[in-house]
Amino acid sequence: MSESPERDARHKARMQRKKAVVDARIARAGDEHGLLLVHTGNGKGKSSAAFGMAARALGHGMRVGVVQFVKGTASTGEEAFFRRFPEQVCYHVMGEGFTWEIQDRQRDIDGACEAWKVARELLGDPSIGLVLLDELNIALKYGYLELEPVLADIRARPLHQHVVATGRSAPPGLIEAADTVTEMGLVKHAFQAGVRAQKGIEY
Amino acid sequence: MSESPERDARHKARMQRKKAVVDARIARAGDEHGLLLVHTGNGKGKSSAAFGMAARALGHGMRVGVVQFVKGTASTGEEAFFRRFPEQVCYHVMGEGFTWEIQDRQRDIDGACEAWKVARELLGDPSIGLVLLDELNIALKYGYLELEPVLADIRARPLHQHVVATGRSAPPGLIEAADTVTEMGLVKHAFQAGVRAQKGIEY
Repeated sequence: MSESPERDARHKARMQRKKAVVDARIARAGDEHGLLLVHTGNGKGKSSAAFGMAARALGHGMRVGVVQFVKGTASTGEEAFFRRFPEQVCYHVMGEGFTWEIQDRQRDIDGACEAWKVARELLGDPSIGLVLLDELNIALKYGYLELEPVLADIRARPLHQHVVATGRSAPPGLIEAADTVTEMGLVKHAFQAGVRAQKGIEY
Repeated sequence: MSESPERDARHKARMQRKKAVVDARIARAGDEHGLLLVHTGNGKGKSSAAFGMAARALGHGMRVGVVQFVKGTASTGEEAFFRRFPEQVCYHVMGEGFTWEIQDRQRDIDGACEAWKVARELLGDPSIGLVLLDELNIALKYGYLELEPVLADIRARPLHQHVVATGRSAPPGLIEAADTVTEMGLVKHAFQAGVRAQKGIEY
């Protein structure tokens, strides 16, 4: 690739400004404490990003708790994988299938309440560094769980513990309470073009 | 939670409609083949979601290749974790730090080209089910790599192999070539509120 000295100089100046901005932000930042993260939106990657954080946390020697509030019909790769580390990962799958497979609201409510009991135990366990609440947002959206008691349990967790909640349509109160919120937006999806859900990608 | 029969009935009808839509889409969908996914945008979770896909793929017994085009200054949890599985994961970290830490454009170009050589080998290896090109989008954005030869190598990969490319500012040509694209949008970030980057969350 042919490069000009001018472009090199412009690049260097831009990177210097960028470094100054980043360094200043780091200097202002406070001490470590547990964060509440929310992954929402219609795009792909909400749960994947939470499971990537789980891998990251395990790499730092942290323990991880997982509660999946909605169970898919297919066995998932993430469950098969993270169950290999029972000393480091407490993995709980609740519910009995996607809600639109079942169509029984009271059964979904009972399942969500059972799942929250498990989540509350993880949120009360100081040996757990990251609690992953997969599809919690869906349980809140459909009113299977009430927001206020859920937030109260999250707020009462150990100071260093991180929490990540995933699912479309996160309620505004959860977004307000969160430290970091990412909206996974759908730009395009293979499914729209008629491609079947793929092993290793969707599940 | 008090529930009315009307709400239950409405819920059931909605879920039945949703199931019909999902079932119809699945019936239209074709056979399995490898997808090209792109995670871009200013929000958190682009790399995390790719590493979550890696965990998912490993759970299905697939082999995974990773090339990190930009190396952070801190040792990362994901690297420590995935290096535990050398039989299943080929893990390569290229480059020598964030570009704004170095400020030498030619060195970045050389590093990116070396990294692409490694990526090309993974893309030519039919035993690899998922190739993760972390921060490839940045290398393309800054012109460290040219898009056309990169796309040619991606297109020439084995039919079943999935590829995921991450990083802000994915170029339009890459988005056009991709099967699935997610824009990770920043709703809010703890860093903005003065919270230092957290172990297990940011790295």
